Amino acid sequence: MHEGGFPVVLGHEAAGFVESVGPGVTEFQPGDKVLPLPLSQCEKCRFCVSPKTNQCEKGWSVGRLHEMSPSESRFTCKGKKVLQFAGTSTFSEYTVVNQMAVAKIDPAAPLDKVCLLGCGVCTGYGAAVNTAKVEPGSTCAVFGLGAVGLAAVMGCKAAGAKRIFAVDINPDKFEKAKVFGATDFVNPKDHSKPVSEVLSEMTNGGVDFSLECVGNVAVMRSALESCVRGWGVSVLVGWTDMADVATRPIQLLSGRTWKGSLLGGFKVKRDVPQLVKAYLDKKIMLDEFITHTMTLDQVNDAIELMKQGKCIRTVMTVSSQ
Amino acid sequence: MHEGGFPVVLGHEAAGFVESVGPGVTEFQPGDKVLPLPLSQCEKCRFCVSPKTNQCEKGWSVGRLHEMSPSESRFTCKGKKVLQFAGTSTFSEYTVVNQMAVAKIDPAAPLDKVCLLGCGVCTGYGAAVNTAKVEPGSTCAVFGLGAVGLAAVMGCKAAGAKRIFAVDINPDKFEKAKVFGATDFVNPKDHSKPVSEVLSEMTNGGVDFSLECVGNVAVMRSALESCVRGWGVSVLVGWTDMADVATRPIQLLSGRTWKGSLLGGFKVKRDVPQLVKAYLDKKIMLDEFITHTMTLDQVNDAIELMKQGKCIRTVMTVSSQ
Ligand SMILES: NC(=O)c1ccc[n+]([C@@H]2O[C@H](COP(=O)([O-])OP(=O)(O)OC[C@H]3O[C@@H](n4cnc5c(N)ncnc54)[C@H](O)[C@@H]3O)[C@@H](O)[C@H]2O)c1
Ligand SMILES: NC(=O)c1ccc[n+]([C@@H]2O[C@H](COP(=O)([O-])OP(=O)(O)OC[C@H]3O[C@@H](n4cnc5c(N)ncnc54)[C@H](O)[C@@H]3O)[C@@H](O)[C@H]2O)c1
Ligand SMILES: [Zn+2]
Ligand SMILES: [Zn+2]
Repeated sequence: MHEGGFPVVLGHEAAGFVESVGPGVTEFQPGDKVLPLPLSQCEKCRFCVSPKTNQCEKGWSVGRLHEMSPSESRFTCKGKKVLQFAGTSTFSEYTVVNQMAVAKIDPAAPLDKVCLLGCGVCTGYGAAVNTAKVEPGSTCAVFGLGAVGLAAVMGCKAAGAKRIFAVDINPDKFEKAKVFGATDFVNPKDHSKPVSEVLSEMTNGGVDFSLECVGNVAVMRSALESCVRGWGVSVLVGWTDMADVATRPIQLLSGRTWKGSLLGGFKVKRDVPQLVKAYLDKKIMLDEFITHTMTLDQVNDAIELMKQGKCIRTVMTVSSQ
Repeated sequence: MHEGGFPVVLGHEAAGFVESVGPGVTEFQPGDKVLPLPLSQCEKCRFCVSPKTNQCEKGWSVGRLHEMSPSESRFTCKGKKVLQFAGTSTFSEYTVVNQMAVAKIDPAAPLDKVCLLGCGVCTGYGAAVNTAKVEPGSTCAVFGLGAVGLAAVMGCKAAGAKRIFAVDINPDKFEKAKVFGATDFVNPKDHSKPVSEVLSEMTNGGVDFSLECVGNVAVMRSALESCVRGWGVSVLVGWTDMADVATRPIQLLSGRTWKGSLLGGFKVKRDVPQLVKAYLDKKIMLDEFITHTMTLDQVNDAIELMKQGKCIRTVMTVSSQ
């Protein structure tokens, strides 16, 4: 995703304190507990004023317009410019973030838990409740059981789904999926036929809702084709920009809907503080996503764990809270 | 579309009278004015009882289950079996249709006009009002200005669209599109850049709704990519089963919706009689689609006109009404 090149400070899922504010910033004060966000909300553009979307015309992702653009990096190392990532660059003790992309949260919130709401958990949860708009009594399938997929399972359950199929090629993930509400478990490697056929047979024609939380165009197609004709809705959540996603026209003509969202469709600056509150009120889970904790100097070990599929989320402590 | 082979009696957009009924049929009587339909409604299956779809488990298109299946053709010629098409086979003086796929209409309806509601017009109109759910004040684009596309233009207008872009590579179609409510006209051949870019520039980011009424996977992709991110909705209407339709995942991730429908999402057996009424009440246009009238023995000339893009609809008289 990082087109700007290297060296770069990665990281975009974090929580912290405001250390200082720039000129003209009135919304935040030093000491505020905040989450930096990979999507902005300027509150003024036609996207921000529409209830239909969480897009904004001013974000880093739209032409990299604001201060966090690669051309105006706030990071240097020994006099050399270091690039920034996703408008946040949070594998760092300090960073500079545009106020359009910061959410002020409840001072009671534990930073080492609510950091997960900065991207992955709100993405999966929102993809189920906001984008798919999962209905009570429905049958759902979630492909990919990382933090994003597990949050999607949690969202399906919160929306009242009756049956939730958890699909992953790594069966070690199934136990965790059960904790979040999955009722059925499918490893595509256990079957000789395509997983869309397997799900179609198990559900008499396909699921009502499916969510792709892997980032693989072949899985995106499977997820769509696992839906029932007539009203099935499939949501793209996983990220990839390396290939086209495809299907046969009849899959859509026969009544399926294909959509997608970023950050679960939440207007994050406004909605993430509510999700923090929901966590404090024990209405959504966060602790269950965290399998490891480390310190920032172990970042490469953490990434290795992730690549090997051995963690869900590793929370890294940057400095003592 | 006809997988069954040849010889076959084609034709599926027609109107006529019931000549006789089979055993157990109580809903129709000889002399009833009716439209044969390429989709069935058994009124009992889970699709029929759902308000979300016009699919049915019992139609010819679903495994060719009923009496109109190729294996049980009602047509023979000199003792040799002749296959049927789309459950209707209407290039014929007489045909046999399952009662699940027949709509009884107002006796005052002129058959040589309302026949258009048997497929094309209800398809385009419904794709706009039922599937896209075009909103008042919105900006729309219709790709392909045959009868289906023109009916989609009529649907966009009926739904209150403020601006309707009519897109066709045959500029002779633009005059007709104006009659149905199009406000802007784009011939992709007049531009060196992709039509999605042209539309995006003309609308400051893309249209709210687009409808593909051609049956070409490249145009389907253009139609999706002509939509505005955040909330754009693109509907597949055109039919093709020769290739996959594709796009980049980000097109959907950034908030577009891709869907499709058959017969405009109308539960045709129930809704077509209402559309006939709407025509009799001058609430929808039909006469304006008809550019030619011929007799059945001129069917090959009619098909030639269509191939050359010289007609919108040619109505063929099979016998005197
Ligand atoms: N849309 C957004 O705004 C947004 C936000 C955050 C993350 N994402 C994307 O969501 C995806 C998931 O993120 P994550 O943190 O949960 O990743 P992760 O790597 O922790 O989880 C991915 C899971 O997919 C499984 N998987 C891999 N191939 C599979 C296959 N063929 N079939 C089934 N399962 C398969 C893996 O075993 C793993 O459990 C990524 O692509 C990420 O970039 C998107
Ligand atoms: N979904 C359904 O239930 C359903 C029902 C009926 C018809 N259809 C399909 O709808 C489509 C249209 O039907 P019709 O009767 O209006 O056909 P038609 O041939 O009369 O019209 C097609 C139009 O598309 C134009 N066109 C061709 N290539 C184009 C391009 N690259 N860009 C823009 N315009 C282009 C042609 O010039 C023509 O005006 C067909 O594919 C048909 O099979 C679908
Ligand atoms: Zn904005
Ligand atoms: Zn039915």
